[in-house]
Amino acid sequence: MSFTLFLVFSIAHANNFEQDIEKIKQSALTDEHAYHLIESLTTEVGARLVGTDRSNKAIDWAEKKLLEIGVTQVTKQAVKVRDWQRVSAEATVTSPYSHKLVVTSLGGSVPTPETGIEAEIIRFSSIEHLKTAEKSDVAGKIVYIAKKLIQDKTGDDYIKTVQGRLEGAIVASQLGAKALIIRSITTDNSRIAHTGSVQYLADVDKIPAAAISPADADLLDRLFSRNLTPKLNLKLINTETKWLDSYNLIADITGSEKPEETVLLAAHLDSWDLGTGALDDATGVGVVIAALKQLLDAEVELKRSLRVVFFTDSLFKQNGALEYIKAHKDSLNQIVAATEMDFGSGLIWRLDTKIASSSLKFADAVHTRVSDLGVERGHNNSTSSTNVAHFIPYEVPVFHWVQDASNYFKYLHSANDTFDKVQLNAVQQNVAVLSIFSFMVANSDMQFKLNSSDKQ
Amino acid sequence: MSFTLFLVFSIAHANNFEQDIEKIKQSALTDEHAYHLIESLTTEVGARLVGTDRSNKAIDWAEKKLLEIGVTQVTKQAVKVRDWQRVSAEATVTSPYSHKLVVTSLGGSVPTPETGIEAEIIRFSSIEHLKTAEKSDVAGKIVYIAKKLIQDKTGDDYIKTVQGRLEGAIVASQLGAKALIIRSITTDNSRIAHTGSVQYLADVDKIPAAAISPADADLLDRLFSRNLTPKLNLKLINTETKWLDSYNLIADITGSEKPEETVLLAAHLDSWDLGTGALDDATGVGVVIAALKQLLDAEVELKRSLRVVFFTDSLFKQNGALEYIKAHKDSLNQIVAATEMDFGSGLIWRLDTKIASSSLKFADAVHTRVSDLGVERGHNNSTSSTNVAHFIPYEVPVFHWVQDASNYFKYLHSANDTFDKVQLNAVQQNVAVLSIFSFMVANSDMQFKLNSSDKQ
Repeated sequence: MSFTLFLVFSIAHANNFEQDIEKIKQSALTDEHAYHLIESLTTEVGARLVGTDRSNKAIDWAEKKLLEIGVTQVTKQAVKVRDWQRVSAEATVTSPYSHKLVVTSLGGSVPTPETGIEAEIIRFSSIEHLKTAEKSDVAGKIVYIAKKLIQDKTGDDYIKTVQGRLEGAIVASQLGAKALIIRSITTDNSRIAHTGSVQYLADVDKIPAAAISPADADLLDRLFSRNLTPKLNLKLINTETKWLDSYNLIADITGSEKPEETVLLAAHLDSWDLGTGALDDATGVGVVIAALKQLLDAEVELKRSLRVVFFTDSLFKQNGALEYIKAHKDSLNQIVAATEMDFGSGLIWRLDTKIASSSLKFADAVHTRVSDLGVERGHNNSTSSTNVAHFIPYEVPVFHWVQDASNYFKYLHSANDTFDKVQLNAVQQNVAVLSIFSFMVANSDMQFKLNSSDKQ
Repeated sequence: MSFTLFLVFSIAHANNFEQDIEKIKQSALTDEHAYHLIESLTTEVGARLVGTDRSNKAIDWAEKKLLEIGVTQVTKQAVKVRDWQRVSAEATVTSPYSHKLVVTSLGGSVPTPETGIEAEIIRFSSIEHLKTAEKSDVAGKIVYIAKKLIQDKTGDDYIKTVQGRLEGAIVASQLGAKALIIRSITTDNSRIAHTGSVQYLADVDKIPAAAISPADADLLDRLFSRNLTPKLNLKLINTETKWLDSYNLIADITGSEKPEETVLLAAHLDSWDLGTGALDDATGVGVVIAALKQLLDAEVELKRSLRVVFFTDSLFKQNGALEYIKAHKDSLNQIVAATEMDFGSGLIWRLDTKIASSSLKFADAVHTRVSDLGVERGHNNSTSSTNVAHFIPYEVPVFHWVQDASNYFKYLHSANDTFDKVQLNAVQQNVAVLSIFSFMVANSDMQFKLNSSDKQ
């Protein structure tokens, strides 16, 4: 092949490449498949707490949907998960005024005695504030963390606020508290309580933990502003008896040239029991399947393989991700890049990465193809999302498509996470971005793995 | 007194009058008393279903607050009210997919059997649609009225939509239905169910009636759009055993010249049990008390009397208003004008009236004094609000200060009717309008009673 011929071929190839991207983008921007999938999962399956029949039904649903779009290799990886179940929750202020609060157990919370716990409430503005408390002030009381989530696009305040939910029961227990309540971690002011998992340590007494609605937190705050010390009767009934079988669902499209090199696309099928998991994470699941469909329908070549994993147990301990890593330890280095869609239906507005500095130009090139969709180029120190975060210690390179969080935290982990909250235009943009990203990485030779100079 | 002297006196009087109005307006527009009263009632009393201890506590609270601002004549009128109590509500779609719906009994609903009612759902787009149905299609089923409330400033669609709640159980029962569910009458899309009273007829079987959340109504609609016929298990536990004692609370400020002529200012203290009745109607109560306080603090003369009535049982049958009318039948013609504040904390944007055409100029003059607050002049065919509406057949002249309904119907009759939804600036505007209205009517000679020519 003469040099001239090669150049012509290369330009022709480049032209096709750009045309393919444009074709995929335009098609994805009018895609309704993802939206229909979200509708289908939330309508036909609904709430799907990990390990339950509904959760297994969701896994079957996804397998069927993947086969329907033409994916031929779909497998399951068995994962043991908790069978924690929410039964009921009641919280009543008994003094100085009587009020019933809207409350829900944090996910995984131990129950109270059947008659409930009645104790004075002690208020802390944040987990940091709680950490400065004296045992003598806290012992025997119900700790209340009043931290309010601030609304913004980045969702950065969530990282700060969620510490109260994650660590609160441990810190409160160490100070001798009988129970923990937190202001629901949400930017909404509905009379709806938002769950989310609570963490315990093996060597610290587990105390019951619950979230109250924002409007009820306001009420408590008004009682405290009167210098009154409200008493609360808290009754949480939850059960947990055994380990259940659940599954990671894995779908593969084999690459034509380097099948062993894999682009990992993640989302999760399990949801909290309160809503129908529309934003968390039917949307991610719908977007990932629809992006695959875009690539299959476009009949474009994919030199590297694409692997979709819908990790189970995303909401408790990410046993799905952990078991996946354990089972695939020897091949994790074949994941050329990983990304996760698990942030509701906000527009993607930034690309963060954690990749080799030698590959940043390639990420910029991907970004260039989607910048007209409102995506900015962010930093190279991404911690990714819930499941893919567990891959980072194994040096799996990460692309993180940061979504607008403005609406997400209104509904997250609550009964209000339902299909009507899903924004079609954002879903379509998400599909476009994910399709183009997958297409470009799958057809490149670029290695993103952090090299020794990156790690200094 | 010479003519000149009279003119000077009259102008001086007119100047004082306008100065008083301006003083009251400016003071009211920075009034925080109403807002603090709303905060106090919702924090220290909270939910106050008519006839309950909480409701009686609210009446005591209001008496105290009236005495505190310097009202000296506060009396109670005993009224018998229902002791209907909500215990629990569950609604589960059992086929073709399993879903738990967010549901609440309509106020006054009879209970289901303890095991619930399980039946096919039959969907109607509206009460009008239901009225065209055949008995053979409806018998044995659970009727579902899917009408969605349209959001607008006027709230006019509420009048249409609420018919489904008021008449639905009667019409459905006549068609042989086992129960009624309606889409919650709200412009919100929260996973919260909105109650409101249901009506029955003595000679029609009473069937259980409930409202489901808007997001759950969407879910049902999606099932129906698949041409599936969902089954529902509906379990409503409510109790009602006896009549309870409640009270209208009546506060009087005696007029200096024509004490027998009275301006009636109405609101209500009872609330639904789900929220804390902040918009319905702590706001009305707060605004009325604060308007009185404005007039008392300004030390202005009031030639006619002002009478505040906080009617009890506003939310079921308005027994408070009906008993008031019965007890005061002979003096109703001394009410020169009546108005009611019972529409949440939206800005007043229009003045409607139902008064003699010979007095319209005076209403226009009142309107002129508040038009800078964003108030338009409306029509003269007002039906007023819940309680004062009962006075219209007795030819009591009505001023109706129409409030912006945009937010009101998001929260009305739901757990979400809490203090955080109250808008301070609107409350202040409401106080300004009500103070000026009361001041002007109390100091005028104008008779508003519809005369024979008006009634043609």
